[in-house]
Amino acid sequence: MTTSPVTADHDLIASATHRARGLTEPLLRNIVEALGPSLAAIGCYHFGWQTDEPYTAGKAIRPTMAILAAEAVGAPPSAALPAAAAAELVHNFSLIHDDIIDSDEQRRGRPSVWKAHGVPAAILIGDALHAAAFELLLGTGRPNAAAVAERLAVAMREIVNGQVQDIEFAGRPWSGPQAVMLDEYQAMAEAKTGALLAFAAAGGAQLAEAPPSAVRTFDVLGRHLGLAFQCTDDVLGIWGDPAVTGKPVFGDLREGKKTLPVIAALATDTPARARLAPLLTEGLRDDAGLRLAAELVEEAGGRKFAEQEASRHLTGVGECLDSLDMPDTVRKSFEALANTLIGRTR
Amino acid sequence: MTTSPVTADHDLIASATHRARGLTEPLLRNIVEALGPSLAAIGCYHFGWQTDEPYTAGKAIRPTMAILAAEAVGAPPSAALPAAAAAELVHNFSLIHDDIIDSDEQRRGRPSVWKAHGVPAAILIGDALHAAAFELLLGTGRPNAAAVAERLAVAMREIVNGQVQDIEFAGRPWSGPQAVMLDEYQAMAEAKTGALLAFAAAGGAQLAEAPPSAVRTFDVLGRHLGLAFQCTDDVLGIWGDPAVTGKPVFGDLREGKKTLPVIAALATDTPARARLAPLLTEGLRDDAGLRLAAELVEEAGGRKFAEQEASRHLTGVGECLDSLDMPDTVRKSFEALANTLIGRTR
Repeated sequence: MTTSPVTADHDLIASATHRARGLTEPLLRNIVEALGPSLAAIGCYHFGWQTDEPYTAGKAIRPTMAILAAEAVGAPPSAALPAAAAAELVHNFSLIHDDIIDSDEQRRGRPSVWKAHGVPAAILIGDALHAAAFELLLGTGRPNAAAVAERLAVAMREIVNGQVQDIEFAGRPWSGPQAVMLDEYQAMAEAKTGALLAFAAAGGAQLAEAPPSAVRTFDVLGRHLGLAFQCTDDVLGIWGDPAVTGKPVFGDLREGKKTLPVIAALATDTPARARLAPLLTEGLRDDAGLRLAAELVEEAGGRKFAEQEASRHLTGVGECLDSLDMPDTVRKSFEALANTLIGRTR
Repeated sequence: MTTSPVTADHDLIASATHRARGLTEPLLRNIVEALGPSLAAIGCYHFGWQTDEPYTAGKAIRPTMAILAAEAVGAPPSAALPAAAAAELVHNFSLIHDDIIDSDEQRRGRPSVWKAHGVPAAILIGDALHAAAFELLLGTGRPNAAAVAERLAVAMREIVNGQVQDIEFAGRPWSGPQAVMLDEYQAMAEAKTGALLAFAAAGGAQLAEAPPSAVRTFDVLGRHLGLAFQCTDDVLGIWGDPAVTGKPVFGDLREGKKTLPVIAALATDTPARARLAPLLTEGLRDDAGLRLAAELVEEAGGRKFAEQEASRHLTGVGECLDSLDMPDTVRKSFEALANTLIGRTR
């Protein structure tokens, strides 16, 4: 019996994620427990560790990236553990604060933390997880721990700025001199999504005492992966199958989000663009309007541009992997992870 | 002409605060500017750096503590600068988030950040200042920077926990087995107020390469100072002169806050306690009720207890200073700072 490529990819990711979770989750649980009974209860709710409900928390993408980076440079996965767990702490702190900021009432199919426990509790558990990430990294006594912690602090500045830019975009017009430009979108997406993936990969490599050039390459790899993910997510936000994405059809258009396909469509000089701009400015009221807008974005080339950008950044990931010398299984795991993240699982 | 003690104390504090501000403020401004235009504008608003308004931001207590700690061990004030600025960043991040949590609409006589710029902006600038404190400390390249950053992360965990306990106290009854005990109050106050003062003093000393025993003593000193401050603040919160405190008379009683004088009064077995408990449980509706409650707290010995606790912790500060060998001016500056903080400026 031969193993099909589907199974091979799936097995690689399942195995890497399993290693990452197996190492990271017990540590995360200890850290959350140590926050004291009130915060621990809220943390357990967010992470889905309450015993009375079946629940799967996240995909552990960032911990998996960190341990693969360690394995890439010949270190055991445990070498990257503090970076893996710190990235997951910061990821979850960001989700909890972002849900307050965006008034998102749902997270992973359940009430978000602020909705379930109130805004004060959500602010405080976020602050506690943020500080815990630094406490964890700095408490390891590893030679590169301080450098990795500094890397995390710099990434945090980027992440917050990405979120600020994203909010700011919402208040800007669809066209004219104040409209969001493609390079602004790229900077926002890199900061908001790429910076933490870059930290996970580069921080994992750095803790595993990879050479500085390899650490830099992992940083670039993480940024490409973040951008590939964001471009794909923006396409799915308009044209994704609601049964798969769990979001309403044309969801991002409905919410008036300034996503890549729309920004790219508006940056063209096409007849479709001329019809699209006033439609968006007036506001899309019904399904017919949403459908027309989606068609015009596609006609103007916005969808194709976003898909090409996703491919370009996925190629960037591949080039980073090419420039690093690593065991074949690790490389294949990275590729499989990247493909999964942008929904191209074979 | 002889200098009166009043002038002497005042001059010492003014001089130390001047040194602290002169070093810290330019660095803080650079850090806030580097957050990007949107966050920088919000940060400048909070710190009062907008040029078009006369405004004094805070008393720079924590930076002053940090640089005095460096001077105490014979180092120049600049040795403690990263700890001084990090403490001020974290102090202000806490104020901004706490104002959201407590729904406080005013800060330093102006609308608080969330009130002026919205909750999302207030959450994000807080998160940015939090991360910036770590970025600053870890970017110094000083030998003890990582240890000081770890000290800050541990302090952050305490600070968040103190805030959580404070919120939790509000939901508990005034008497019975669920009532707040004196030792719980002490733990809350030490975490909420003492931990950051302890970080400022100990972190400043540690950056200045003080011996570990001196660093520990500065940590204890900061905790005593925080508790002395909190005990005094609780007394002023009930009996303080509104013209001086800027708060309404009986303010804390009006808000139903579980402060030290009330908790101490309720922990006694006095006739006044027997009358006070049902009064508090029913809720204080009018000025007559507030006045009576304040009298009963005093009669049961709650006020005296809180004042004795403040004195005891001030003595603790003095004992810490006694056990350290430092220049006389520095010691006098510490004493003057402690006296100012608990409103005993001669």
